[in-house]
Amino acid sequence: MNTRYEHISILGLGAMGRALADALLGAGREVTVWNRSAGKAGELVARGAKEASSVGEAVAAGDLTVICLLDDASVRETLTPVLSDLTGTTLVNVTSGSVRQARALAGWLEGHGVRFLAGGIMAVPQSVGTPGAFILYSGPRDLFDRVAPVLGPMGRAHWVGEDAGFAALYDMAALSGMYGMGAGTDHAVTLVHAEGGDLETFKREVLRPWLEQMLPISVDGADASASVPDEYNPAMQAVGLENLLAASGEAGVPAELAGHLSASLWRMRRAVANG
Amino acid sequence: MNTRYEHISILGLGAMGRALADALLGAGREVTVWNRSAGKAGELVARGAKEASSVGEAVAAGDLTVICLLDDASVRETLTPVLSDLTGTTLVNVTSGSVRQARALAGWLEGHGVRFLAGGIMAVPQSVGTPGAFILYSGPRDLFDRVAPVLGPMGRAHWVGEDAGFAALYDMAALSGMYGMGAGTDHAVTLVHAEGGDLETFKREVLRPWLEQMLPISVDGADASASVPDEYNPAMQAVGLENLLAASGEAGVPAELAGHLSASLWRMRRAVANG
Repeated sequence: MNTRYEHISILGLGAMGRALADALLGAGREVTVWNRSAGKAGELVARGAKEASSVGEAVAAGDLTVICLLDDASVRETLTPVLSDLTGTTLVNVTSGSVRQARALAGWLEGHGVRFLAGGIMAVPQSVGTPGAFILYSGPRDLFDRVAPVLGPMGRAHWVGEDAGFAALYDMAALSGMYGMGAGTDHAVTLVHAEGGDLETFKREVLRPWLEQMLPISVDGADASASVPDEYNPAMQAVGLENLLAASGEAGVPAELAGHLSASLWRMRRAVANG
Repeated sequence: MNTRYEHISILGLGAMGRALADALLGAGREVTVWNRSAGKAGELVARGAKEASSVGEAVAAGDLTVICLLDDASVRETLTPVLSDLTGTTLVNVTSGSVRQARALAGWLEGHGVRFLAGGIMAVPQSVGTPGAFILYSGPRDLFDRVAPVLGPMGRAHWVGEDAGFAALYDMAALSGMYGMGAGTDHAVTLVHAEGGDLETFKREVLRPWLEQMLPISVDGADASASVPDEYNPAMQAVGLENLLAASGEAGVPAELAGHLSASLWRMRRAVANG
């Protein structure tokens, strides 16, 4: 089959769905949009998008449908009523979900004759379509090769394997990395604020250059066995973490904000116990 | 007083103390070293350092003493027996400790006629003396101005205020940011590994570019009030975090490693509850 994928439909107009549609429109693609609740399509329609009044109409309008909903349950709920119309169509799901959900969804849709790619958007809505943004895809390589140039304006397309679960796996894992960084930066500025430091000076002159310095070390040194190499001196790091947790408590920072420190301390103590 | 600070003594030869001594020797400084237990000075002595047999001898040998020990208690324990010899000398403490400990130490030593600067090393031992490394100092500005050029080879000197606690405060807070990033990257690779993904591909092609993309956003957006701006959609992030925690558990990743996710989830739920 030689579907040319000139016309893209988008299901779901949350902040991310709108950003995707916007990037595609900006690159001159024909775009049809649909959202469960009304009132989200106005700006996109003004920029040239068509608005479909039902899921079935949206899927029929596009050569390719991008699904960007809240979660796996919303995807199932949205597609189930139109399942028989999906045979022979191409769906790309960029809705966040687990590895198991992605694999099960791929099996379910492929069982109904759908050409299916799983995706994971490595961008926030504000950065969709910018040079740093990239999108992970997993599923059939030949389908990816045809879809990638069409969806390129949303973000650099990167194929990570045939296993439909891998886009979700790498996406979720990278999100976990981001939440770690976010937990750390939020706790850091909360502590500085609580002790009367200057937040702008701290962010600009200390936190940002320090994290930029540590990022490659943190990625390269990340370990899947929860072990800590000797050169990191886990006993000394455990002392440092205990001091940091104590200082955070003394400053009145809520203990719940220090979960990243507890996780690190658990790891260091485990490494010490394992010798 | 016009002390010229040509000769530097270092107390403590853990990995960090050795790295500091090494950087100073590399820049042609005269260096005397002391460590509580023997056997740590060999390489430094081979490179031209003198080894002192007591704390008092070390302090007497240098125009300036850098203290790099395990924690605040070790600093107190090490200096107490030689307190009367410290009057009129210059001490720079780069031992990790809390804000309160730094302020109390400054008060104690200044009360004994010591010229004192508090320091915080924004480097790991491997990166001391490299272009990215920097060291925070707080205390009297005029003392910093005289000390900074002498200690420059350890890392770019950066003064952050008269308050002796500020070097420790910014250091600790930035460390918390680093531990957050580390908790995130460790959890991320543990999850990828548990689900059969390829760690090298994930680190190089997904995790590193993603964190590089998110770092400025994470620093700029870090908030000291534990609030979450509407554009971050805390309700949707809470759903994503719950999915991520569930997926992590399903993959068999120890719950203790996911503390950064619990911290983020707590923050999102709190933001939703506060409207």
